[in-house]
Amino acid sequence: MTREKLYLFDTTLRDGAQTSGIDFSIAEKIAIAELLERLGVDYIEGGYPGANPTDTEFFSEKRTKTARFTAFGMTKRAGRSASNDPGLQLLLEAKADANCFVAKSWDYHVEVALGCTNEENLESIRDTVQAAVAAGREAMIDCEHFFDGYKANPDYALACARTAYEAGARWVVLCDTNGGTLPGEVKDIIARVSQVVPGSHLGIHAHNDTGQAVANSLAAVEAGVRQIQGTLNGIGERCGNANLISLIPTLMLKAPYKDTVELSVRPERLKDITAISHAFDEMLNRAPDRHAPYVGESAFATKAGIHASALLKDPKTYEHVEPESVGNKRKVLVSDQAGKSNLLGELSRLGIDVDKADPKLDALLTEVKEREAKGYAYEAADASFELLARRILGKVPRFFEVKSFRVMVERRFNAVGEQVTMSEAVVKVDIDGETRMSVCEGNGPVNALDGALRKDLGKYQSAIEGLELVDYKVRILDGGTGAITRVLIESHDKTTHQRWFTIGVSSNIVDASFQALTDSITYALLKSAG
Amino acid sequence: MTREKLYLFDTTLRDGAQTSGIDFSIAEKIAIAELLERLGVDYIEGGYPGANPTDTEFFSEKRTKTARFTAFGMTKRAGRSASNDPGLQLLLEAKADANCFVAKSWDYHVEVALGCTNEENLESIRDTVQAAVAAGREAMIDCEHFFDGYKANPDYALACARTAYEAGARWVVLCDTNGGTLPGEVKDIIARVSQVVPGSHLGIHAHNDTGQAVANSLAAVEAGVRQIQGTLNGIGERCGNANLISLIPTLMLKAPYKDTVELSVRPERLKDITAISHAFDEMLNRAPDRHAPYVGESAFATKAGIHASALLKDPKTYEHVEPESVGNKRKVLVSDQAGKSNLLGELSRLGIDVDKADPKLDALLTEVKEREAKGYAYEAADASFELLARRILGKVPRFFEVKSFRVMVERRFNAVGEQVTMSEAVVKVDIDGETRMSVCEGNGPVNALDGALRKDLGKYQSAIEGLELVDYKVRILDGGTGAITRVLIESHDKTTHQRWFTIGVSSNIVDASFQALTDSITYALLKSAG
Repeated sequence: MTREKLYLFDTTLRDGAQTSGIDFSIAEKIAIAELLERLGVDYIEGGYPGANPTDTEFFSEKRTKTARFTAFGMTKRAGRSASNDPGLQLLLEAKADANCFVAKSWDYHVEVALGCTNEENLESIRDTVQAAVAAGREAMIDCEHFFDGYKANPDYALACARTAYEAGARWVVLCDTNGGTLPGEVKDIIARVSQVVPGSHLGIHAHNDTGQAVANSLAAVEAGVRQIQGTLNGIGERCGNANLISLIPTLMLKAPYKDTVELSVRPERLKDITAISHAFDEMLNRAPDRHAPYVGESAFATKAGIHASALLKDPKTYEHVEPESVGNKRKVLVSDQAGKSNLLGELSRLGIDVDKADPKLDALLTEVKEREAKGYAYEAADASFELLARRILGKVPRFFEVKSFRVMVERRFNAVGEQVTMSEAVVKVDIDGETRMSVCEGNGPVNALDGALRKDLGKYQSAIEGLELVDYKVRILDGGTGAITRVLIESHDKTTHQRWFTIGVSSNIVDASFQALTDSITYALLKSAG
Repeated sequence: MTREKLYLFDTTLRDGAQTSGIDFSIAEKIAIAELLERLGVDYIEGGYPGANPTDTEFFSEKRTKTARFTAFGMTKRAGRSASNDPGLQLLLEAKADANCFVAKSWDYHVEVALGCTNEENLESIRDTVQAAVAAGREAMIDCEHFFDGYKANPDYALACARTAYEAGARWVVLCDTNGGTLPGEVKDIIARVSQVVPGSHLGIHAHNDTGQAVANSLAAVEAGVRQIQGTLNGIGERCGNANLISLIPTLMLKAPYKDTVELSVRPERLKDITAISHAFDEMLNRAPDRHAPYVGESAFATKAGIHASALLKDPKTYEHVEPESVGNKRKVLVSDQAGKSNLLGELSRLGIDVDKADPKLDALLTEVKEREAKGYAYEAADASFELLARRILGKVPRFFEVKSFRVMVERRFNAVGEQVTMSEAVVKVDIDGETRMSVCEGNGPVNALDGALRKDLGKYQSAIEGLELVDYKVRILDGGTGAITRVLIESHDKTTHQRWFTIGVSSNIVDASFQALTDSITYALLKSAG
């Protein structure tokens, strides 16, 4: 059977950015685009150039290597030509491969929100698509409120879709903007749309307002649609967008999809999907959903009880897919062997050679398990993991030893009656038997500690000159200010342009930060020592 | 059109109790059963009497008034009669109205897990149902692994269903035990099952392993099934069970269901569903999912600046159901594009009356915009927003004034050579002109400050007795330890069960935390002052 190509369109950076509480910086957008390319989606919608400074800057260069870099925007305004619409011209100047234009397809909204005639709206769709195609862009139209629009006025909704297609749009995307359409309706309406636009040019954009964004997307695929829009972990406005992390494994592993459609995601990349999903949550500084389909920590966990022995005999009859196929793990069978092979894979990825039979490997595995139980998350902190592994397996020089530190934060009124807060840190470090004490002020306790620690490392000072801290994340693992704190620090070396992540865990946030800071400096020294 | 009765079967207390990390006490089971009766489900499955002391005790009396109280258990063992199976006899002695017996319907599991013949398993089903009916019970059979079993051996799976029905089972429940069946398969297989058991006697028990437990349940209803099993907020093993909180509004408010089926849940009870969902999370001591369909805090929230004014003009065209119908609220997010109409909507939601023409409104808008530019994110911190608004628009009493604080963190080796880190905070507070100084140690600087601040608030002390910090989040806005820090604190009042979020922003993490802490306490005092 030949499988038809099904395209994945990610809108994490555009529609996902509408999620309450989410606000991506340029650096975060770049990192997320890298994650998406690692996964292997076909399109990355990066944002809306012209709508805000971040998105405009993000589109000042092309940010993808393999995925088509897509700029979102609106169709041209009624009453002016495409070449005379500055918003549209800005979109066509953005460094993008493709443009996705949102257009009204519900006549009610044409009147109320745009205040133009139905015919003027069709003209906007037509002219905008043609202008984009003329500018050498792949053009697509997001038909906003398509399903509700179809229910209110089927002819007009169809006219919008047909106009976009006939003008040369590669994709006509049917958007369930309010998120309330049900799978049966999706299927029935798309059957009708296919009579005017072929399924190979149709896309689906579903929202989760009835908990069925995934089901609606799959219903659309069954109706012949060949592009799915969604986001990482289903983030998005209100109840979220269709979750690509749930959809991709279903499409690749399960009948009928695995036999009928083909994705750009390679099977070996599918094994990364659990790690990618978790890495994205790390960027959002939130705990991954333990119960997420396929990738959740509990997705293949069983409070076995009565099932235990049968499950041990043949796990496949208790699991709808193999956890390994999505890079997840079965939780009932604690297999040291599986743990060990994971570990060996990790070490080889970091370039650390070790013999399979080396007993130190068991010691490392035990240590990693114990630390992860305490809250360390080495998945997100490669540099700290490498230091731990090298310490246990081989040798990491003791570059310096911190004998003690003290940090103070004080808020008071100063001599002229202004409220001021000051932070001061003192660090006592031993290098080759010589004690050095440094003191530093900072605009916070961690900044002061960082300054004091890096102020005088003697003969190592030159090796950390290019070091800077670029991100600092804190997560409370059990809730409340008295719980375990996990700190992740991202460091950057201005000289070598390398980046690395370190971690610290403690009930004390300053202590956890200090662990991550010293790991970061030690890692820099290790790398500079070659 | 006459609507057919569709029965709701809640298994929160039985299958939901399989969720990792969940372990209900008797008191919790009683409280949850009350919630379920308030909602109006038809059956409450309370547990498995005989399997553990809690469940046995729970079934020592009838715990429901209107819902049918249902005991879960296994069919009788092969090789002995029903009257000679102590497990089964215990189930029939439990104070229940109905019994739900799990039976194998996949021949592979009959052989591997039960170790009996296919015919013996059918006999167990038949005898068990007949024994329950003879004991005056409503009997139902949960056909475990029904869909996978059907795919492996359709005749045998059908024989199990038919045997149960012919023996007198009121319900034959088709269980997607592994959770991997897709909606199309559910529909096709049930069409076949309906030829041997009428839909009015069929139930569906779906799991969420592909993110489609809700869609599978609805597909089953469309195929004619008239009982849905599910749990509150979709808790359950692995990825959870079908979420009744998502299903009920769809069934009651949306076509085709609202015109074809009828639930026992009354429309006026549907208005309680948001409160019921949140109350259940309170019992689990976890924060409600902000993005949950229908009941999430963000389910009717929109961030979009351009949509906001059109939305206020005619919310129905932007909302698939009315938020009030499920007891939720429309929320227009106050974000940096916030216009006056957004702000007015927010204020009215918080119960703050203000005249549209009040010049203080402009002052508030300016202040919100300035603060959001500095890094405040009021969409995530309702309580801080309310305090800010009330301060500018009206009056918030000056309950207490912090004159100064000082916090110190020190790491050193103690007298016996162990490395220790200690944190100590001193806070000086003025209440009605009287200065109070408090000192407190903590396991981190924020914990110590929190302790010192709450140690002695004089006449206000009793109002903050139930206050606890349940979550603490830190985000660095520009990267590095020297950048702007945003702290979000979630507080909870053990007495009133209210939760609120406060925010602090500063280049100093301790300072930012302190702002959020004082906002939280001020908010508690404001609410307790009425």
